[in-house]
Amino acid sequence: MKLRRLTGLAAGLLAAAAFAHAEEGMWLFTDPPRAQLQSAYGFDLTAAWLQHLMKASVRFNSGGSGSFVSGDGLVITNHHVGLDSLQKMSTAGQNYARDGFYAATGAQERKCLDLELNVLQSVEDVTARVNAGVAAKAPGDDDAQARRKVMAGIEKESRDRTGLRSDVVTLYQGGSYQLYRYKRYTDIRLVFAPEQQAAFYGGDPDNFEYPRYDLDICIFRVYENGQPLHPADYLKWSVAGARADELVFVSGHPGRTDRLLTVPELEFMRDVSFPLQLAQLKRLDVLLSAWSARSDENARRAKDDLFGIQNSRKLRDGALSALQDPGFMGTKDIAEDSFKQRLRDRPGGGRSVLAAFRQIAVAQRVFARSYLRYRYLEAGGGFFSDSFGIARELLRAGEERPKPNGERLREYGDARRESLELDLFSDRPIYPDLEILTLGDSLTDLTEKLGYDDPTVQAVLAGKSPRARAAELIRGTHVRDVAFRRKLYAGGSAAVAAAADPLIELARSIDDEARSLRKIAEAQDEVKQQAQAVIGRARFALEGTSNYPDATFTLRLAYGTVKAYEENGEEVAPLTNFAGLYERAASHHGREPFDLPPRWVARKAALDLQTPLNFVSTCDIIGGNSGSPTVNAAGEFVGIIFDGNIESLSADFGYQDAQSRAVSVHSAGILEALRQVYGANALADELVHGHRP
Amino acid sequence: MKLRRLTGLAAGLLAAAAFAHAEEGMWLFTDPPRAQLQSAYGFDLTAAWLQHLMKASVRFNSGGSGSFVSGDGLVITNHHVGLDSLQKMSTAGQNYARDGFYAATGAQERKCLDLELNVLQSVEDVTARVNAGVAAKAPGDDDAQARRKVMAGIEKESRDRTGLRSDVVTLYQGGSYQLYRYKRYTDIRLVFAPEQQAAFYGGDPDNFEYPRYDLDICIFRVYENGQPLHPADYLKWSVAGARADELVFVSGHPGRTDRLLTVPELEFMRDVSFPLQLAQLKRLDVLLSAWSARSDENARRAKDDLFGIQNSRKLRDGALSALQDPGFMGTKDIAEDSFKQRLRDRPGGGRSVLAAFRQIAVAQRVFARSYLRYRYLEAGGGFFSDSFGIARELLRAGEERPKPNGERLREYGDARRESLELDLFSDRPIYPDLEILTLGDSLTDLTEKLGYDDPTVQAVLAGKSPRARAAELIRGTHVRDVAFRRKLYAGGSAAVAAAADPLIELARSIDDEARSLRKIAEAQDEVKQQAQAVIGRARFALEGTSNYPDATFTLRLAYGTVKAYEENGEEVAPLTNFAGLYERAASHHGREPFDLPPRWVARKAALDLQTPLNFVSTCDIIGGNSGSPTVNAAGEFVGIIFDGNIESLSADFGYQDAQSRAVSVHSAGILEALRQVYGANALADELVHGHRP
Repeated sequence: MKLRRLTGLAAGLLAAAAFAHAEEGMWLFTDPPRAQLQSAYGFDLTAAWLQHLMKASVRFNSGGSGSFVSGDGLVITNHHVGLDSLQKMSTAGQNYARDGFYAATGAQERKCLDLELNVLQSVEDVTARVNAGVAAKAPGDDDAQARRKVMAGIEKESRDRTGLRSDVVTLYQGGSYQLYRYKRYTDIRLVFAPEQQAAFYGGDPDNFEYPRYDLDICIFRVYENGQPLHPADYLKWSVAGARADELVFVSGHPGRTDRLLTVPELEFMRDVSFPLQLAQLKRLDVLLSAWSARSDENARRAKDDLFGIQNSRKLRDGALSALQDPGFMGTKDIAEDSFKQRLRDRPGGGRSVLAAFRQIAVAQRVFARSYLRYRYLEAGGGFFSDSFGIARELLRAGEERPKPNGERLREYGDARRESLELDLFSDRPIYPDLEILTLGDSLTDLTEKLGYDDPTVQAVLAGKSPRARAAELIRGTHVRDVAFRRKLYAGGSAAVAAAADPLIELARSIDDEARSLRKIAEAQDEVKQQAQAVIGRARFALEGTSNYPDATFTLRLAYGTVKAYEENGEEVAPLTNFAGLYERAASHHGREPFDLPPRWVARKAALDLQTPLNFVSTCDIIGGNSGSPTVNAAGEFVGIIFDGNIESLSADFGYQDAQSRAVSVHSAGILEALRQVYGANALADELVHGHRP
Repeated sequence: MKLRRLTGLAAGLLAAAAFAHAEEGMWLFTDPPRAQLQSAYGFDLTAAWLQHLMKASVRFNSGGSGSFVSGDGLVITNHHVGLDSLQKMSTAGQNYARDGFYAATGAQERKCLDLELNVLQSVEDVTARVNAGVAAKAPGDDDAQARRKVMAGIEKESRDRTGLRSDVVTLYQGGSYQLYRYKRYTDIRLVFAPEQQAAFYGGDPDNFEYPRYDLDICIFRVYENGQPLHPADYLKWSVAGARADELVFVSGHPGRTDRLLTVPELEFMRDVSFPLQLAQLKRLDVLLSAWSARSDENARRAKDDLFGIQNSRKLRDGALSALQDPGFMGTKDIAEDSFKQRLRDRPGGGRSVLAAFRQIAVAQRVFARSYLRYRYLEAGGGFFSDSFGIARELLRAGEERPKPNGERLREYGDARRESLELDLFSDRPIYPDLEILTLGDSLTDLTEKLGYDDPTVQAVLAGKSPRARAAELIRGTHVRDVAFRRKLYAGGSAAVAAAADPLIELARSIDDEARSLRKIAEAQDEVKQQAQAVIGRARFALEGTSNYPDATFTLRLAYGTVKAYEENGEEVAPLTNFAGLYERAASHHGREPFDLPPRWVARKAALDLQTPLNFVSTCDIIGGNSGSPTVNAAGEFVGIIFDGNIESLSADFGYQDAQSRAVSVHSAGILEALRQVYGANALADELVHGHRP
């Protein structure tokens, strides 16, 4: 499992059922599990320890986590989190994603095209302000609009006042609203990446498996005003690294869990959304795999997309498997019934809470009816291509930006302007042949799903076959030209209309329907959010602070133990080492994806083969935690999360500590590889000493 | 494109529209294109020439074609046609499918497990008998039953009288019924196969592409009574082989075309059946690709299935692309309208024919309503595994065999008994791990498509998750044991019931519904067949004998020219050679699937690199033609069909001669490879001289 945010899934055990497990939890830094750590481990979680870890933790807005590991601005994350940046700076001649990179000096470090890092600075409770804003809504506004307005207002005010990126985060299903302020960094330079073969050793076949042998790391340096950043808080590197049976912590940004979902919501995923998404993922997997096989250059161009697709596919397959298990759904039914019974037993009979359950069921049914069209027309399923995304952004930016901030579609709000522009003006390569391939295939899919005779489909195809239409659109559009994008963005909707770009005009032709589908989706989402908030508050009343909110790609703390587990009756040891890596390569006769990069073959003799390479812990993680530091009780960096084992696939639903494990690269293994395989002694020294030599 | 029968697709241009093309046609040997050949090529097609070619042509009942190429019983076909047999005789230790095989002496030849070859001996028109039988049907019988009875009766009588396999074949949409009598051969021994790398050089990426460089051949020897067969008719081997611009013929067994389908039938494929089938193929592709990547042994076990799946997927993708092309569908609409207009212009206004068009439209709508359940419950889509197929065969054989021959499901008729038993008692390996994988995935698919709450799904899953249920069924069943199968088959339905085998009982639990779905399908098929016969006869009246019937996996003759074509403005030469193969491997740095087998690397210097390897011709072929001999005007073997180029993907719909090409291995290239790469001089000598040295 690659734990990027995009792979986050939605489904969950009721907390009531899951709380049997001691080490469950993706805890807020503002409400950490002090008591649990004290009673289970005798560990005293101090405010200073927590504050230091918070400010050393980094969020990758490309979807992932990381941490500062030197006083001169080094940030470590996973190779698969950095891959997007590696890909964008690669060319046909120089494939950093595949072949790796090392800058021995600052001058050799290479700037990323559109990477943004966020470091959390403070958290402020704004629940009362948001709720007051909704209560005092303007005439004509519904609650969703009112909430959007007040949240946008809070974000803008905070941003203007502090200069920090400011996001109002919805926690506890709307039970709580918190203002998260981040320092943004956008001058990020690549320092080190191994070959993808080493980072993703064993490839898709080994994904989700353990034992593992992956050097899944990527190291950047953060710059500010053209100089390396000197963060006050960074993690001290543990040269010995993680030991079996020791207490460890994971500080990172789990993307999304849905452990509090109701049965009708789970049934929607089981019966409607997951099957549809899986069918799309599998057709894309086949499409891009076949295309990649035609030439090395095709493979390089499709690699990042294919990687994400295969990963999401495995995750959803695993999740759907749990949802189709009558045992699991039975447990969910019982847990929900028992919660409802406890509500009925209270004074007042919890009438409004039981009504909230019914409201969710109805909202889910309403959304289900338009889900197919929503998915294909608004959520981009029918137009899979970077070009279409840009075309729509230009169209909508032109329409949204003149509106008052609070009335815009959320992604066009003032608080997100810089991120939007970073994406929109990115110089990343867009390959017309690949775009024609994926757009052609998704137009084919659109035609299958909505029907050849559907008026929208007829309008989209404009008398051509899906593939011919895709070729015409991609060849005809100018959105690959960044200057063109800048011009249209600056010129607003008049400039956009005047350009008469075929792809933008296509986006326009479906935009009325797409927006109205989104409106339905958001309205039902609003109903559910309110109902969930009602249920969430009732749950608090029953369960107190023993609870943590579902993951929301905000900073969380997990804890657990480096620990063996049983699989098919045999014990799986918690640590692997370099010797195991070479044995695995030998047993597969060095065939892809079990082959080793030439450097690794050549440098075998130099390595201490007993050095640990990967390890597992019982920490509760999910997509988005990729690249999270694993730290020991002293707060030292002992490893970096990059995966979960196959038994952890149901983590979206709930946590199980018997077999489910988080997988990290070991801090000692990283040093050994940097020195002995890559000759990156200057970098290794910086990690060990915390400053450049 | 691999042209095995299973890949045959259904759709077609009206002949009226397609007859612009001179070299179109999959002609009956009983009604060959004498006039066309005379006028276009001055070629005189004699009865003796035709009879010799017919008796030298071989049908592989595993789906494919071949030909006798020596007086001592050698039969040549494609590696991908022989693959099923190669796979079945392979073990974990000895992988003939991957590594190839050569028997330098008769004693080394290896017997195939369950391969049946058919050689056409005679054709008899039985149209009048079939129609009379339907007219005089028994009270209570519908037309379909009556036709099945009379056809089974004719087959049985012929078989009893002649000892030959006897199949009544429906031609011209029921306009004509012909009794085909075949000599059956079941003692087939493997003589030669190249490495799959050489046979399928370029793998899935090069599939459908040209230029090509594949040695896609496999050579067997037919035995009778323990001795090599000495066929009176076999093809003389042309040492020089095919030349550019020469007239060539293809004699083989195109599996299925549907060039006469009506617009509602094409719409059904476009909107209903192809999207569903493609989604299944793509999910299987992903499933088996991922599993194959885990280990070499997995890859070996899944290879044959995966091969067929990827091939069918490409074909259907191509076909759907044509069906979604408004240009194509517009042409179809116009052609059908113009045909109807010509009918209206005739005396009587063609009322019954126009009614037949309406009947087809209604029957198609009725079938469409039950298609999903038909596909998953009767056509096996929900139970993808060899074990389930066997379990159902045992169940149904027990129920069907006591019935009168004419009332049975067709595959249990007396005429097909030997073929059924050959399949049922085959010793082919069945791998429980692979069976659990595919059955688990298709039960998951079944649950998605029919719905978790569907009563049939609930009964099938029996309270387990799809994967757990699949594991339980495959572990619990005894159908992998051939002795068990023999016992149950011999004991009939009482023995089957007494065995209480979990997988057979599963098949039983859905069999009422499956059979009733089949009944609906067959009834609508019957309506369509009758209506098509009405239309077919009217078409004859209008078009005369300029027409050929749609392909039906019976012997056909195609003709054409070895000819270059244009693609993206550049001319593609008609022949490739060995030099091109080595260049292609070099340009891909020898990476899979463009790597060469070690023998080919080692023997490069010994080869005459200018020897032709593959070539294209304008012959009209389709799935099932795989392995068909390409012969010259003298009736000599000049090559062997193995593929079509990407422009030929719409061959199911109709023929286009501008770019569409059939691809063959060249007879000179085969000899050169046998001698210089494989040191198979004895075999090469036998091919050249027509007898063993």
